[in-house]
Amino acid sequence: MLLGSNYPSSVLRDRTLETILHERRQRLAQLVDFPVILWSGRSKSRNFPANKYPFRPSSHFLYFAGLPLENAAIRLESGRLHLFYDDPDPSGALWHGEQPKRHQIASTIGADAAFPLSELPAQAAGAATIPVQNDDVRSLQAGVLGRSLSPLDNLQGIDRQLVRAIVQVRLTHDAGALVELRHAAAVTVEAHKAGMAATPTANLEAEVRGAMEGVILAHNMSCAYNSIVTVHGEVLHNEQYHHAINADDLILADVGAEAPSGWAADVTRTWPAKGTFSPSQRAIYEVVLAAHDRCIEAVKPGVEYRHIHLLAAQVMAEGLVELGILRGRPEDLVEADAHALFFPHGIGHLLGLDVHDMEDLGDYAGYEKGRARSRRFGLGFLRLHRPLKPSMLVTIEPGFYQVPGILNDAGNRQTYREMVNWQRLGDFADVRGIRIEDDVLVTPDGAEVLTAALPTQAGAIEDLVRD
Amino acid sequence: MLLGSNYPSSVLRDRTLETILHERRQRLAQLVDFPVILWSGRSKSRNFPANKYPFRPSSHFLYFAGLPLENAAIRLESGRLHLFYDDPDPSGALWHGEQPKRHQIASTIGADAAFPLSELPAQAAGAATIPVQNDDVRSLQAGVLGRSLSPLDNLQGIDRQLVRAIVQVRLTHDAGALVELRHAAAVTVEAHKAGMAATPTANLEAEVRGAMEGVILAHNMSCAYNSIVTVHGEVLHNEQYHHAINADDLILADVGAEAPSGWAADVTRTWPAKGTFSPSQRAIYEVVLAAHDRCIEAVKPGVEYRHIHLLAAQVMAEGLVELGILRGRPEDLVEADAHALFFPHGIGHLLGLDVHDMEDLGDYAGYEKGRARSRRFGLGFLRLHRPLKPSMLVTIEPGFYQVPGILNDAGNRQTYREMVNWQRLGDFADVRGIRIEDDVLVTPDGAEVLTAALPTQAGAIEDLVRD
Ligand SMILES: [Mn+2]
Ligand SMILES: [Mn+2]
Repeated sequence: MLLGSNYPSSVLRDRTLETILHERRQRLAQLVDFPVILWSGRSKSRNFPANKYPFRPSSHFLYFAGLPLENAAIRLESGRLHLFYDDPDPSGALWHGEQPKRHQIASTIGADAAFPLSELPAQAAGAATIPVQNDDVRSLQAGVLGRSLSPLDNLQGIDRQLVRAIVQVRLTHDAGALVELRHAAAVTVEAHKAGMAATPTANLEAEVRGAMEGVILAHNMSCAYNSIVTVHGEVLHNEQYHHAINADDLILADVGAEAPSGWAADVTRTWPAKGTFSPSQRAIYEVVLAAHDRCIEAVKPGVEYRHIHLLAAQVMAEGLVELGILRGRPEDLVEADAHALFFPHGIGHLLGLDVHDMEDLGDYAGYEKGRARSRRFGLGFLRLHRPLKPSMLVTIEPGFYQVPGILNDAGNRQTYREMVNWQRLGDFADVRGIRIEDDVLVTPDGAEVLTAALPTQAGAIEDLVRD
Repeated sequence: MLLGSNYPSSVLRDRTLETILHERRQRLAQLVDFPVILWSGRSKSRNFPANKYPFRPSSHFLYFAGLPLENAAIRLESGRLHLFYDDPDPSGALWHGEQPKRHQIASTIGADAAFPLSELPAQAAGAATIPVQNDDVRSLQAGVLGRSLSPLDNLQGIDRQLVRAIVQVRLTHDAGALVELRHAAAVTVEAHKAGMAATPTANLEAEVRGAMEGVILAHNMSCAYNSIVTVHGEVLHNEQYHHAINADDLILADVGAEAPSGWAADVTRTWPAKGTFSPSQRAIYEVVLAAHDRCIEAVKPGVEYRHIHLLAAQVMAEGLVELGILRGRPEDLVEADAHALFFPHGIGHLLGLDVHDMEDLGDYAGYEKGRARSRRFGLGFLRLHRPLKPSMLVTIEPGFYQVPGILNDAGNRQTYREMVNWQRLGDFADVRGIRIEDDVLVTPDGAEVLTAALPTQAGAIEDLVRD
């Protein structure tokens, strides 16, 4: 099941998985001098024990083990890989078909040795680990290691050293990862095109979502996160799909595919339900698009991601001043966080095996050592605060939203009474939320947009909806 | 979110949810004289804490609470309902939009009183519960009740009495449930038609799956279980979709929708990839269809479901004798379990809020009190062993499979050496697996097939593929 044909990337067709995993282990070995044990986890039940959610292993395991094995562990030391996995019960073949055996998996991933899980405790002395989030597996980990595990945000000793090392290894992507990330991006582009094409005949948000996720499933991929497909773009984490689509609505779709190997894409487009932006919608769209384009132009090694975020804020503020929604000098408005009234999230985040890559580690991944979250309204939501490096993959996703909880807040009304032309804002009432998000790879001399095949220009978007 | 428009059944449009839930509580109150507390559970994370699987509450909670509330509990006593639920954090409205408040939910479901969760322990004395499967919620339950909880298959005291009572209540479906079950069935029919229509241009199983699940999502429903869409029908629990479809393949699709209210459908069809059954495929298809039709004809109140299962076995044996695959008198072949070489599962199961309804309770639901699983090869897999009653909903799903693990088993080869014409069986090598499954409601004088809008006749199936 997990071998060859179920892992449809060119990586495996080229038999290079073994090589890729070998190189990942070497990179880790240069950073830690203690053994490391990583667990894949177990599937979780939905409404009764036999009805499981589709299994997704821990990303740390997946990064070094390469295959989505359930209930497995790997031990890494000095670049060597030991696999711990129990051969499937032969009687299970009746129901599940022939399953690959431990020795086959070990060969595919280039393990130096393979053992049943029962032998793991004997090889666990002095090993570091990353606690998984499931209570059952976490207590298993503690039992095998013979010690308690601290919470992820307060790890101690070698576990904390391991986190720092894994962040360093996973922060930039190797060729094997990029093949998969490009594949997930390409399928995601197709999904968004299908969503736009399905819009003219759709009465419900759910119909657009069905068209988009149908494409992802048809490519034997899954969704990297719960899709947002909504006419209420102002609800930032809107995971409902029951609203009717009206002709004057904008549809905001934040939908991304995950390859069978676990690598993710994360793309947002916003399009007019009837295929034509109203003048007010188009005006705001152009402001968001300008921020998007300027930010992508600014991506290159050495640039602080926080600078990109502030650039988005600056471009947004300029545009909103030009439209008469904000009043004042754009620099001053950004300094006062006035942009954050309409753009209350960060410009993006790391992307990899997790859609918010390594977010399980809190800010260990997103924040350079020694840095912490800002308390500023306009900066506290920033998920990434590091200088960019070649082979980092980040999202660039500026947005404009009219969130009632923000715009009707009495404190905000007071603070920003002079900076916002509230009456003029009323002319843009048909703009609930707009976001434009692409997946941007840092290259040695700039950036490559992995999702560039999906247009961002307003006119091109309109064409895709109307075709 | 959870109110009104997100619950798109006519039940809620008619404002009858309150009435339905009231009646369910009354039925329970007639069976138990102690208070009952049921928990909804909590969402589970996928690869990092913020990336959750779509939340699905416990079905026992959902049955009596009506809405898919996360992290809630209800207390039932003498037909009265107390809701325990914490009002959403107001700051969450920024990200999640306006959430319904406790008092709004309480009004929608007709609760007699509503409290924050912190007040639950004070009302927990002497209450029975059903342990949920998640460790974290289970320990919460034990903590609130101030006692330990036994495993589900060995419940004691009032918990066991509660299980018996809930089984009795949930075993037959009320009008509110039937509206939802019919809706899930209708969407499932559309999904199967879309799968057939997508087949001629599909190269991969995944493409057919994408077409089917896309329809389910487009109706704002979810999948009641992980779909089976495969050219390897002989792998009974095949949850992979990566195989190429060849012209001579049969596609077996076991796909069912779940309404937002939680009520499920469960349907299987098998169709030829190129739109025409080969003579050998059609011959076996007709045998399975005969079993399917004869079983549905036999469904009526008072009939033992085990009798339906044995009828399927008999009809299958007759058909396979006629085709020259089995040798002997059909009665003797069934007595010897020879049919189970090709039909190694039960004829079906209960269907309701769970696709295997109340399977979390082990055989408490499926097996009449005092009955236990048979050790016979041909009967041990039977999931339901009760006399049928009006308003029970069951699946009827005979099948024929060539499972290598069964047919190549040395013991089976020896036991059935005279009963199977192994050479003749070779003429049917292009039949890996065929199943035909419908959802059948027991009516006062017979049966109603909720999924009857999806054809079963070979010719009609071929037409749907080729159209
Ligand atoms: Mn994103
Ligand atoms: Mn079934």
